[in-house]
Formats: sequence, structure tokens, C-alpha cells
Amino acid sequence: MTKKYVYMFDEADWRNKKLFGGKGSSLILMSKLGLNVPPGFVITTEACRDFYLCRKKEIDSLVFEFEKNPPPEVRDEIMKRIWNAIDGLDLPEGLWEQIVEQMHRLEERSGKKFGGEDGTLLLVSVRSGAAVSMPGMMDTVLNLGLNDEAVKTLADLTGNEWFAYDAYRRFLQMFGKIVLEIKEEMFTEIWEEIKKRYNAKEDPEIPVEGLKEAVDRFKEVISKEWGIFPQDPWEQLRLAVKAVFRSWMNPRAIFYRMMNKISSDIADCTAVNVVTMVFGNMGWDSGTGVVFSRNPADGENKLYGEFLPNAQGEDVVAGIRTPMSIDEFRKRFPELYDELYRAAKKLEEVNKDVQDIEFTVENGKLYFLQTRNAKMTPLARVKTAVDMAKEGIISEKEALLKVSPEHVLRLLYPRIDPKVKAEPIAEGLPASPGAVSGKTVFHPDDAVEKARGGEKIILVRVETKPDDVHGFYASVGVLTSRGGMTSHAAVVARAMGKPAVVGAEAVEVHEEERYLKVRDVVVREGDFITIDGNTGKVYLGEVPTVTPGLIPELKELLNWADKYRKLGVRANADLPEDTRKALEFGAEGIGLLRIERMFRKPERLEVLRNVILAETREERIKRLEELTEMIKPDFKEILEIMDGKPVIIRLIDPPLHEFLPSSEEILHQIFDLKMRNGPREEIGKLERLYGRVKVLQEANPMMGHRGVRVGVTYPEIYYYLTKAMVEAAVELMEEGRNPKLEIMIPQVSEVNEIIYVKEKAILPMLKDVARVHGIEFMEEDRTAAYIFKMKDGREHKVLIGTMIECVRACLTADEIAKETAFFSFGTNDLTQATFSFSRDDAENKFIPIYLEEKILPDNPFQTLDVEGVGKLIEMCVRAGRAANPNIEIGICGEHGGDPASIEFLHKAGLDYVSASPFRIPVARLAAARAAVKEKLTEV
Amino acid sequence: MTKKYVYMFDEADWRNKKLFGGKGSSLILMSKLGLNVPPGFVITTEACRDFYLCRKKEIDSLVFEFEKNPPPEVRDEIMKRIWNAIDGLDLPEGLWEQIVEQMHRLEERSGKKFGGEDGTLLLVSVRSGAAVSMPGMMDTVLNLGLNDEAVKTLADLTGNEWFAYDAYRRFLQMFGKIVLEIKEEMFTEIWEEIKKRYNAKEDPEIPVEGLKEAVDRFKEVISKEWGIFPQDPWEQLRLAVKAVFRSWMNPRAIFYRMMNKISSDIADCTAVNVVTMVFGNMGWDSGTGVVFSRNPADGENKLYGEFLPNAQGEDVVAGIRTPMSIDEFRKRFPELYDELYRAAKKLEEVNKDVQDIEFTVENGKLYFLQTRNAKMTPLARVKTAVDMAKEGIISEKEALLKVSPEHVLRLLYPRIDPKVKAEPIAEGLPASPGAVSGKTVFHPDDAVEKARGGEKIILVRVETKPDDVHGFYASVGVLTSRGGMTSHAAVVARAMGKPAVVGAEAVEVHEEERYLKVRDVVVREGDFITIDGNTGKVYLGEVPTVTPGLIPELKELLNWADKYRKLGVRANADLPEDTRKALEFGAEGIGLLRIERMFRKPERLEVLRNVILAETREERIKRLEELTEMIKPDFKEILEIMDGKPVIIRLIDPPLHEFLPSSEEILHQIFDLKMRNGPREEIGKLERLYGRVKVLQEANPMMGHRGVRVGVTYPEIYYYLTKAMVEAAVELMEEGRNPKLEIMIPQVSEVNEIIYVKEKAILPMLKDVARVHGIEFMEEDRTAAYIFKMKDGREHKVLIGTMIECVRACLTADEIAKETAFFSFGTNDLTQATFSFSRDDAENKFIPIYLEEKILPDNPFQTLDVEGVGKLIEMCVRAGRAANPNIEIGICGEHGGDPASIEFLHKAGLDYVSASPFRIPVARLAAARAAVKEKLTEV
Repeated sequence: MTKKYVYMFDEADWRNKKLFGGKGSSLILMSKLGLNVPPGFVITTEACRDFYLCRKKEIDSLVFEFEKNPPPEVRDEIMKRIWNAIDGLDLPEGLWEQIVEQMHRLEERSGKKFGGEDGTLLLVSVRSGAAVSMPGMMDTVLNLGLNDEAVKTLADLTGNEWFAYDAYRRFLQMFGKIVLEIKEEMFTEIWEEIKKRYNAKEDPEIPVEGLKEAVDRFKEVISKEWGIFPQDPWEQLRLAVKAVFRSWMNPRAIFYRMMNKISSDIADCTAVNVVTMVFGNMGWDSGTGVVFSRNPADGENKLYGEFLPNAQGEDVVAGIRTPMSIDEFRKRFPELYDELYRAAKKLEEVNKDVQDIEFTVENGKLYFLQTRNAKMTPLARVKTAVDMAKEGIISEKEALLKVSPEHVLRLLYPRIDPKVKAEPIAEGLPASPGAVSGKTVFHPDDAVEKARGGEKIILVRVETKPDDVHGFYASVGVLTSRGGMTSHAAVVARAMGKPAVVGAEAVEVHEEERYLKVRDVVVREGDFITIDGNTGKVYLGEVPTVTPGLIPELKELLNWADKYRKLGVRANADLPEDTRKALEFGAEGIGLLRIERMFRKPERLEVLRNVILAETREERIKRLEELTEMIKPDFKEILEIMDGKPVIIRLIDPPLHEFLPSSEEILHQIFDLKMRNGPREEIGKLERLYGRVKVLQEANPMMGHRGVRVGVTYPEIYYYLTKAMVEAAVELMEEGRNPKLEIMIPQVSEVNEIIYVKEKAILPMLKDVARVHGIEFMEEDRTAAYIFKMKDGREHKVLIGTMIECVRACLTADEIAKETAFFSFGTNDLTQATFSFSRDDAENKFIPIYLEEKILPDNPFQTLDVEGVGKLIEMCVRAGRAANPNIEIGICGEHGGDPASIEFLHKAGLDYVSASPFRIPVARLAAARAAVKEKLTEV
Repeated sequence: MTKKYVYMFDEADWRNKKLFGGKGSSLILMSKLGLNVPPGFVITTEACRDFYLCRKKEIDSLVFEFEKNPPPEVRDEIMKRIWNAIDGLDLPEGLWEQIVEQMHRLEERSGKKFGGEDGTLLLVSVRSGAAVSMPGMMDTVLNLGLNDEAVKTLADLTGNEWFAYDAYRRFLQMFGKIVLEIKEEMFTEIWEEIKKRYNAKEDPEIPVEGLKEAVDRFKEVISKEWGIFPQDPWEQLRLAVKAVFRSWMNPRAIFYRMMNKISSDIADCTAVNVVTMVFGNMGWDSGTGVVFSRNPADGENKLYGEFLPNAQGEDVVAGIRTPMSIDEFRKRFPELYDELYRAAKKLEEVNKDVQDIEFTVENGKLYFLQTRNAKMTPLARVKTAVDMAKEGIISEKEALLKVSPEHVLRLLYPRIDPKVKAEPIAEGLPASPGAVSGKTVFHPDDAVEKARGGEKIILVRVETKPDDVHGFYASVGVLTSRGGMTSHAAVVARAMGKPAVVGAEAVEVHEEERYLKVRDVVVREGDFITIDGNTGKVYLGEVPTVTPGLIPELKELLNWADKYRKLGVRANADLPEDTRKALEFGAEGIGLLRIERMFRKPERLEVLRNVILAETREERIKRLEELTEMIKPDFKEILEIMDGKPVIIRLIDPPLHEFLPSSEEILHQIFDLKMRNGPREEIGKLERLYGRVKVLQEANPMMGHRGVRVGVTYPEIYYYLTKAMVEAAVELMEEGRNPKLEIMIPQVSEVNEIIYVKEKAILPMLKDVARVHGIEFMEEDRTAAYIFKMKDGREHKVLIGTMIECVRACLTADEIAKETAFFSFGTNDLTQATFSFSRDDAENKFIPIYLEEKILPDNPFQTLDVEGVGKLIEMCVRAGRAANPNIEIGICGEHGGDPASIEFLHKAGLDYVSASPFRIPVARLAAARAAVKEKLTEV
């Protein structure tokens, strides 16, 4: 017995989307709900798979090659080979018989004959419909069944010969192009010629004779290019089904799937829907429309869409007449509107999402052709999800799953002000989010120079290379005309957090001549443009941007997220203003305060430099005392803002000489002075500085004298830095506040490092502070917690913990856990060490190639490398918790704000993630989604 | 019941060395063998432990502080506290009664009375003796039992008043110093005064009156400093036993244990031996001697030692008379010699090692006082171990365990020619092995300058700092007057493989004035000295050195090693001459050939630079073609030398810009030219070079664009480098040879890197070479082995494997193993990545402190870090073998030549280690010892 490949819409289960495809399922569902769907049937995806089956291996390997995104000439060659492999494939066994049987049932039900007979006429559309929506990517044939006889019947039935021949000539063109693979120009040229001859601006101006001539000549083209046009509707149908099957493998579709990370496996291929034709162009009580159950731009709960009377879908696309809004449709066809409204709400309820519905009205009768979940702006996505949850259509958890962290992120990045009606001049790939305006510059050196003058620069290049990176630093955004989502420009811009649009192919970039051109528009160096890295759009001039921030619905959604997530969310914040922002975004503490960022102001940097350059311990201590007084107030302010919430302050992490000018810089200064016979003592001073910097210089600073190693070699530095923190906290304790200070030691690779700096610096400091303030001081046994007992009896803890960023710390976590109260994964450095990739060098020099060539699936500095780094994290969490069950484990690397990484970190059993203030809403949502998803898979 | 603390020599088990100490055991053993041992008993180490027990905690923590090697003032303070803790401790319960009982048994057996009575006199020595030998570190009291009466009895019994009073005054001085802790000068000053008064050059010239005066005045000193001298011999004994117990904790002993890594735990403390005195100074048929059962310098199987007639041990030490050799002793006392010879051989047989025997002859009767395993030169160690095995005294396996890899290493380093009789002027710590001569220089800058002039320089400093490291590079050896085995100078010298003597405290170094002084000897800058890093000795002038190489016995031993070891041993060799050396030393292949080392010659470097600086692919390929032709002959020669043995050639590993001049160097050149108005085009050329170098420059080259990443970005580089290797191999195949080429890809962190370079470079290259040579070519399924099938039917394989030096490679070894035929651990880089320590920076800037402060037990770049790196290796081996059971796993990092690491690597289940040619004998032995030890623990 052969498989059942074909199902009538009213006899199948709409939930089996994998078998029936998206469109098929929607037609089945609407039939089931009693909506008026034109009768028809669906040929399953299984049929399509079986169609390809005997060539699977060959196709798979060719698609694999194609997906490597080779140069165009290779791509064309691969496509040719794919078509060769597919060419001549026949329908799987038994399929045709089933199609014929179902067609007969259609004929019976409608009382019409396929291809026309007895004055009746059944025409059908043959439409593709894969399980995963790929709008516009695959093929559809309308009006199938027309031939030289049927067209007459159609004319008789409708009393409209013009309509009938117009339908026939359209059918021939579509059938010729899609099914018979004849170049479309061969038809359009003829059509243009006829139009010209009749001096017709629009199609309707052509008389019926013109249409008939077109029909004849189209058939001639087909004869010449393919063979006699098949008058037999069954033959047409058979050819059309095969053509739709084949369209799964057209280059457009493969490319789309590749870009959208959809599998090209034939197990996931397309279904085919054969549907009785209905006509929206049967007169002014007919028409075609699209309606959204809610506004897809702002989420308002109101039908939204448009209707074009006396037209078919194609006409809407052609855009010749302006369609009426749904409001107008409501006035003109109140009953149809009510029917539409009820259907929309019903479908929304069943599909649990906003619906995007295609319909046709034929002689006053409403037909539903398709429904699918609507694509929406991030704003609408958030608002509708929250509204639907409140209306009871979905649960809170479902709402959380509907909104992706990406949506939230987009709401927080600047974007083009939606109130402004700006027309883009070009569109590329949205490579790095955010919208920004700036003056165009076509060379990185110019960018640096202009930026020095304080101008906002957008760097425009054909493509970028490592040599251009200084230009990225100088610019507010980047635009390229070539390259994909993993091109150098895209990777570097994302790494730097700058908006970028890449591969905007319509933009001709003339780097040498310093201008760009889009069709007629010329933009010269210094002219303003605006790029939108959220959408990939490019605009002329300065288009206003907005940052929506936390709209009320998002706030509500995040409150729900907080209910369900298990991961805590803290902020990476270094200054009081960041801390306030973080609190506003919902941070539950500070997961990382980087002391070194407090030294960005020149006068502060000066003091730090003096500490580093000190040649004796005494001098160093003197400088450290100044430093302590300087930074203490900041610590106090931040601890006060976060009162009652944990604040992790990290001891200085970067190599010390990063705070000094580079030796080459000094060398340049020395030579400058020498060239112009500058003062000797000035030169001498610089030469001494040069000597000192050379001594501090390192071959690989990332793995050099930094982090806890500085604490070991100069315990006094740790003594004074921790003193500034602890004094700030103690002063607040004395004021009756509740500071929760946690001191973090970076770059630990061996537990003895911690024991040593505790003993040599931190413990003596704690005792000294307690003594000076006259407070009782205790060490909690085995917890790395130190307790200050105030005079009024209150107790405050100060915790000591470590950053886990060296591989060896993960491997010896059991030992380290015994000496620490908390772990915080520094996944930036941990990723560097695990791959032996220096981020500075890698993202510039080879990661783009690794991504393009698919050597790595993602940039591991953005999305956590689960296979490598993740394994270390899991080992560390397991060993750490076994040795110290009270240990608190979090992450403060950038991955703490990356949704995919958060899902892994949730599973790995961390206590919290810490992210930049901006990313906190994202992290809250991602954490909740991870928890909800886990629950789902548990069930 | 109290414990049994005291055992007569003839009633105990000599095997229980832990309980009876080394000396005690040897006395027990000799008694058991029927050798003539003076009667006596041993007080167990347990008694000593119980003596300390009530202060254990306090002592432990003080010793811990002491072992941190603090500055002298702190050390003194700690010692004071240790003595305070010990002071007033009493003998453990029941011990004294047992001692008294055993003393009475001694009296009974000898028929003499302790302290003299009835004209008899029993005198004893009280000697320390820990389980682990610490020669000279602890105290001994001789002639105990003498007092004002007994001295007269002694005079009567011997008929020699002079002898008796001399013994008495010696006893008083020794007892005063050791037991009563009176400064020795207080006695020696008196003695010198008396000597002067009698105008005596030597002691025997003093008349009995002088001795009697000394006795009286010594007793006065004791009265004043301590209290009335205890005339009661029992009281003397009690005090002496306590003193010997205490001597376990004298600073000298603690320091010795610390330096020799012997535990200072009281569980391991000293036993006390109480032995009847016999006198070598009873006349010319008496005397004292030391004999080795074989020559401890060269291992010759012949008694070796010396005998001083009519003398006590002290006199030998004083060196007043020249002792006779054993050969002379044989002539003079043939019967005694025979007795000695038989005893020596018997003891050798029982102790299974060369013996170092102390004996005394009293009135023609031979007494054995001690035997222990002899300390020998590395040469003697090797020769005697092999000889004893051949004689059947020990097994081959035991011989392997007797010779430490350190011994072998010392045989291979240059050392002072033993034929030369050179007197050292000073002695320090042997910080880095090898002996070398050079001109002294006292400042690193001077070293650099002098070395440029081609001179061999020894850098002499009080101590060294990171700022001095350029001086190390310029010097052939380093000498410091301060610092220990883990001081900066020691660590850096070992890391660079340069001989060093550190902490030679007798050497006064005047850095500013540029000379050194040892007592009267002054060595000025430019004068020659010779340092011996094997022994710590420093010599004036150029002392000839030798490198013994593989002596026949070592060859034999290594052949035995080859029988028992499971690990293979290969060489790290880069040039034909190294390869020959490696083969001679027993290498079974090449485990690492570093291509980059082939470019050290300037003309070759030039070609490589052109490859790197090429701006287009075409130019790069042109340059690569030149390069290929240049290096191919070397590959061919090496493959030919190693015919039939595997040769692993590694693709270029270091960052490319390491082959270019540094940007600062170029900058200097540019400015120089500018300052003297040099030619414009020259400047322009340099400026272009500068620009290119800046583009290639990296923040952290160790983790930058290097290794396989270069292969991914420039597949043509891999194509041509591997082509040179494969063509060399194919040409040899055609000549009928059997080259075994294995190509190693470095810096892999992800299996896709390997797949990519195989596909883009190696496989096309292999096919091209096969085609050009007209050979059949096949790919072996799933083994990363590629087969050339020659016209005569022979098949040759070329293997592709990878270096495991990135952490992620260990974590994803299962994936990588599927694509490779071999793994080779690059533990240098792996250690760097695991610790996040850049070796260049770490060994200079903070590892010395880490070792001094015991934050790390060893320098992880010398001895493999088992806890961290070792864990990764174990994971990798397990996962790799599971995924690919045929995979060959080795190590080519420096740890492959480190004995401690080799033991771990054996256990981890590697197939082979690869080490520098010099280290191959060491590796062969270490591998065998690991295998033999494992077998022992299995039983």
C-alpha cells in the first residue's frame, strides 16, 4: 500500500504543521473553524521529501557547498549541479493517483469540471507552503486549468471576455515561467510591445484582441522554448506540482534558509496546496485584502490592513491603485467586516498570536485564503504579548516566550523615530544594532582626523580590512557595500558595539574619489547620512532617532520575567551614574565594578601612574594613600545607591603598564624634542620614563603581571585598594545603612594566591580598619566572610571571592571554593585562554574568516562556546559547589548579557548573571525564558 | 605500661630504620652480621617524638614560618621562639629508667663500670642518627662518663696520663658547647692562650700540666655559664640525650632539611645511639678510618678510603697529619684489611649499595662504628649501579632505580675536568647545571656590550632583578652572592639553560666599582672565572671542563632502561646535526621539528620575511616557491638520517611578525636617518616597512594570529610548507628509502581548523605531488593517514596530526581525534594557557616570588603542573583514545625531558615523550624508572 500523500482540507489535523506546511495547516484550521475557505486539498511535505529521496545524498552535499557562501561563479556552478540532480525526478509512487482522486472529489463537491465541461469550470491555484514560513521564496501557480476551451467557458460564465482572456494570458505567463522555466522577459517583451501598439498606459486599456494576441504569442513562445502548451488541465496540474516541489531548491530559497538558519534538509521541505480559484476581480463587489488582527507596528488592539476592490493579489503587489484601509472597508462592507473581525479574533485565540490573514471577496462572498502569525515590530511584539496575556488568550509564560530578548534589545537601542516618515535610499544587512547619523568619510585615516575635530563620523567603505580598524574607533557607525553578517566590518562593529549596515549593494562606494552613489543620489564626504543597524536601512541626512526605553508593557513583561526566572540579574557598573541606570533597569546588585574604570579622568590617572612608577615601597604607599582618599567617595556613593544589595568590587585587573603611555609614544616625543632641539631636562625626564615603561612592558600583557599577581608582588596595592572599599562600607554602616560589599580578586589560577593576599593584605587591612573605627571584627569560619559587629549589635559581612577567568581556576575549583565566598566567571578572559585567542587580535585578524568559513558557529566572545568554555564552567560549578555548598556563583563577562549564553548559564546552575545596565532587561527576559523553556521540556 | 624506647643493638630489627634511625640501624645490622661493633643501645625516634609532642603545634607553625626563608633578622627571631618552646622539655615518661637499665646491661657485659669504679671504666659516645641521613647536622658527644675521678682511672688503665687529660679536656669542651650550650670561643680562647704560653704549635707539644690547667679552667667556665659541672656520669648522660634530641631543631638542621626537601615533622626525628667508647688514639696499633666499598669518585670496584693511626675521628677532621690510603693500610695491617674487605662486601650485599664505613682500630682490634650508603659522583653512581647489577648484587631494575635522571643529566652537562686539581675560591648553591668559564662583568648593560664584541661573559651581581634580564641573554653564566634556589637569578638561568651559582655568600660583589672579592682575592672586570652550576663552586681563571657523554656503563644502563620502559623516546631536533646527535643518544624518531628554527640564517630569514610582507597572494606564492626549494634539502637530509623512524615536522608556530624587526627598532632607524638627514628614499622604504609591521603587530602575540590560524587565513603558506616536506619524503621513497613523515598542525583549538586546512591546502598538495611524481595516492579511511603507493608496490604513509597546546583542544579531543593520526602535547603553551601566564613575562616578573613564597611548589614551565595541566592531559588522552583507539599520543613540550613530569606522563598513558637531544638519555631512564616503580607499587 502506498502512503497517504493527499488530504482534503476538512479531513486533516491542522496541528500537524510539519506534514501539511504552514499554509496547508492554516487552510485546514480555517476549514475546521467553519470559516469560508475555497475547497481544496494539501499534498504533504512527505510527498515532497519522497520526491527528492533518491537524490538526497547528492543534494545534501551540494547544499552544504552552497551554504559555505562561495563566490558567485562557484555558487552558479553549484546551482546548476543542483538543478541537474533534480531534473527529471518524477512524482513519488501513488501520489498522482491520489491527486486525481481528490480532484474528482473537488469536482463532485463543487459540481464543476476541472478544465471545463458542461458549461462548468473548476480552476485551481497550486501553492507551496513549507512548515517554516519563507514568504515569497517559493512558487505559486494561479488559474490552473485554463486552456483554449476553458477560457471560453470562463468568458461565458462571467459574461466578461476581457476578464477571461486576461486570466488566460496571465496563467500562460506564470505557467511558462514557473512550471516550464522559460525566462519571464520572453513574455513581458511581447506584452510591452502589444501595450505600446495599443498606446495603453495600463493593462485595462488593451482591448480583448490584444489579450488574444498575447495568448497566441505566449503559446508560441512556449512551443519554441518547451514544446506544445499542454491543453490538458491534468497535465498542467502534474507539471505544476512538480514545479512547486522543485522550487524548494531554488537558489533564492536556499539562500533565504541559509540567512535565516532554516534547515535545507529535504525532511523539512514544502507541502503543496491545491485550492479552488476564487476571483477578487469579478467586479466592485469583489476584491482582495490583507488584515492583521492587531496593529503590527504599534500593537494596538484593532484590525489593521487594506482591501483593494475588483482586484487579485497580484494587483495589490503591482500597486497601481491605492487600496482602502480596513476602517473604510468596515464602512463599505459592515457585514463582511464583522465576519472578518470574528474570524480574526477566533484565529488569534486558536493560534495564540496576532494573525496576518489573506482574504478575497468574490461577488460579495468572503473567502479566507491563508492565516499566519504576524510579523511585528519589537514594540508591537511586546505590547501584543502583554495584552494577549492580560486578555487571557495566552499565559504569562507564553507571553515571555513570544518576546525574544532580541526584541527587547532593539527597543533599547536608538532607532529611527517612527513618527518621522523617512524614505531609505538603500538597504543592506542589519549587522550591528542601533541607528545613528553622522558625516560620511571614505577613508579610516580621514575618520580619525575628522573625529579629532569632534565630528560624528560614519565610515563608508566597499568592505573593511584589519588595517581599517582605527577608523572604526573614530566613527559612530559603519556602512559597507559588500560583505555579509560575518564580514570583517560586521564582526568588528558588533564587537565594538557600533551600529553598522553592511552589504548595502545598491550603494556604489568610490573610496578614492570620496563619494557614494545610489542610483542618482550622490553623497559626498562630509554629507550627513543616517544608518539603522536594526533594519539595515540607509537614509539621506540626519533622521531623528529615539530610544524607546522601558515602555509600560515591557515593564510589565519584565515583572513577569522576574517571577519565573531563577537566575539573579546584576549589573556591570563602574560609576554612580551607571549604578543608578542599572537600578532603574532592575538590577539586583552590582556583579562587577571595575576599579580601573574609575581612573579614566586625567587627574585620577596621574595618581595611579605615580603608584605604578614608584620605585620604592615607601613612595608607592604614599601614592596609594592619595589614591585611597580619591576613590573612596565613589565607592561610598555606589554602595549607598545599592544599599541592601550586593556590590562586587574587583581589584585592579589589567596589566599595570596599560595605564602608562606606550613606549613608542614616548619615543616619538623624545625624537620630536630632539629634532627641534628641545630642552635637555625635558628629554632626560622622558628618557627616564621610557626606561621605566620598557621595564614594565610585557610580551603578552594579557597573560602577564596583572590581577592577583600584582597583589602578590605588591601586597600594599591590595591593602590600600581594599581599604578604600572597606572604609566606604564601614562609614555607611556607621550611618546606619546596609552596604553589602563583596571584594573580588581577579586572575586567580591557584588557591595559594588567594590565601597569600588575604593574609598579607586583606586581613591586616580589615583588622586595621576595625581598630581605627573601634568596631568588633570577626572572621566567619570557612566562609571567606568577615563580620563587623557594630556597637548597636548589628552585624555586617564583607565577602571575599574570586573571578574565575583562568582555566586552572576551573580545574582546581574545589580548592579555591574552600577559600572564597563567591565565584564570578570572567568569560571574556576565560574564552581567550580556552581558545588561546587574544580578543584584540582575533576579532580583527581571523575571527571574521572563521565565521565566514564556518570554522566556528559564532563569535565566542559574543556567544558562549558551550563545547569548550562551557565544559570548564560546568566542571567548575560542580567542583565548587561540592567543596563549598554555600558558594555564590555568577558571571560578569559579556556573555552575561547574551541570551543564548544565558540559557546555557541557567542550565549550568549559576546563581546570577551580571550584564551592562543596557542589557539588564534582556538578561531578565532571557533568564525567565530559560526557566520557562526548561519547565516545558521537563513536562 | 610505658613504651619500649630503648633497644640493645643485638636485639633489634635493622630494617626498621624509621624507628632506629640510619646510624642505629647500621649498628644493629653490623651486630647481626657478627661484625665487631662496640656494645651499645639505641633510643628510638619515637622517644624523640614524644619528647617534642606536647609542643608539637607550636613547633610546627614556627618551622612553617622558618621554611618560608624569611630575612635573617626574622629567622633569628623564629629560632629564638623555637628554642624557647623546646627549653625545659623533659624526657618522656619511662625513658630514663630504660636507659639506666640498658646501661647496667652494658656494664654487665663489659665488666666495666660507667664513670669508673673498681679500676674499670666504661665511657660512651652519645650520637644522633635520624632516619634520613643529615651528615654533620646534628650533635654527638664523645667520652661521656669522664670526671675528676674517672680521668685518673683512665690514666691508670692506659698508662698514659697525657691521653687521659687530653680526653677529659676535649670532653669538657664538647659537653660545654653541645649539651650546656656555652659558646665554644670561651673554651678555644683559653686553649689558645695555654698553647701560646707553652709556645706549642701542635697540641701534643703541651705538657700534661697544661692539659690539667685547661681542665680546671674549662670547669670554671662551665660553673660561670651554666653551674657546677656535673661529675655524675648519669647526670651527664641524661643531659646529653636531651641535647641530642634538641639538636634535631637546631637552625642548621632545619635549614638543611628545608634545602633538601626533608620533612621537619617530629614524627621523623632523630634516634640516639649510646655506644661504648673505643679509642683510636691508644698508640700506633690503633687508629681511625673511613672506607668506601667502591671508589665514590669513579666507581672502581676496589676499597677506597683512608686511615689515620693513633688518632680519633676529630683528628682526621682537623687534618694535622696526613692519613694513609687504604692501599697502604692493606700493606701495614693485611689481616685487618681482609676483615674490613669481607665486611664491606657483606654490607654492600645486604644493603644493596656501595657502603661508606667508619671504623676504629683499638690496640689492633677492628671496631665498626657505622655504615651507610655512599654518596657518589654521578659517574660512580652509574658505574657502580651497573657493576653491582652485573655481579648479581642487585637486579637491572634496581640498578635503574639507583641512578636518578639528575645523575645522568649531570654526566651530560659540562663539568670541571676531574683530572684538573682546581681549588674553588667560594661555594654557593648549584642553581642551574653546567660548568663554564668567562670574563666577569658586573652590570647587565656592560654584558650586552662586551658580548657584542664576541667575548664570553659571566654576569656577577649581588642579586638580579627583572631589569637585568638582557644581561642574562648576553652571558654564558651567572654568579650572585645572594639568593636561594628560587631567587630571580636561579629561576631565569634555569629557564634559559645557562649555568648559574647563586648565594655564594663568601663573594663580596662591588657592582659600582666593578670587582669582586673573596677574602684576599680580588677579581676585576674582565678577569676570567669559572663557575660550576653542578656543584655551586666558583674558581679563579679558566678551569678546563669536560662533557663525559655516554660512558659504556651509562650506555648499558640505558639499554636496560629501554627494556623496561613503556614510553617511547623521541627528539626535538630542527637541523641535521641535532638529528644525528639525537640518534646517537638513542632517539627513536623526531617528535618535534620546528620549521621556524630553519630560518635562523640571515639569507633564509630574508626569504621568510618576503613571504610575510607580501601584499598579494600572487607575490606570496612566488616567495613561497623560493622558500620551498630552500628548505626541502634539509627535510630530506633529516628524513634520511631518521630513515624508518617517525619524523614529526610542525608547521610554523610563532606569530609571523616575530620574524620581522620590531616596530621600535625601525622607528629608531628612521629617526637616526632623519637626524643625520639620510637619503629620502631610504627613509621612505623604512616607513613603509614600519607601516606593514604595525599592521602585523599584535597586543598578545602568544594568543594571536599564529599556528593553524595562519594556515586558515593563508592556505597557500600551508600548501607550500607541506609540499617541501612531502616532496622530500617522496624523493626518498623513490630512492628506495623508508621515510616516515608526520605533519603536525599547531595551535588547534577546534577540529574544523584541521578539516579546513586539510581540505584547502594539504590534500590538494598531496594530490599535486602524487600527480607530478606519477605515484598512486590514496586516503586511508578515518585515520588521517595518506598513502603513496609506489610503482614497485611498496606503500608509504604520511600522517597528519596536531599539537595539543590550546585548552580547548583538550576539551574537544574527542572531535579532534577523529580527524588526526596523532596528538602531541605542547605543554609549554598549554601551561601558559592553563595558568594565563605568559612565560616570557612570568619567569621574569613574578614566578620567582611565587616559588619563594611557596604559592607554587615548582616552576610549572619546568615541572608539569599535575593538578591543572595534568588534569587536562588526562582528559584529553581519555577522550582522544575513546574516539580513535589508534591515535598516537606524545609530548613535545619541554616537560618531555623532565623526570618528574615523565613519571606523570607515563601514568597518563602517553605513547612517547620527545625531548631535546641532550635530554634523551634522561628521558629514557626516567621512563624506565616510572615503569619499574609502577610495577613495584602494583605488587
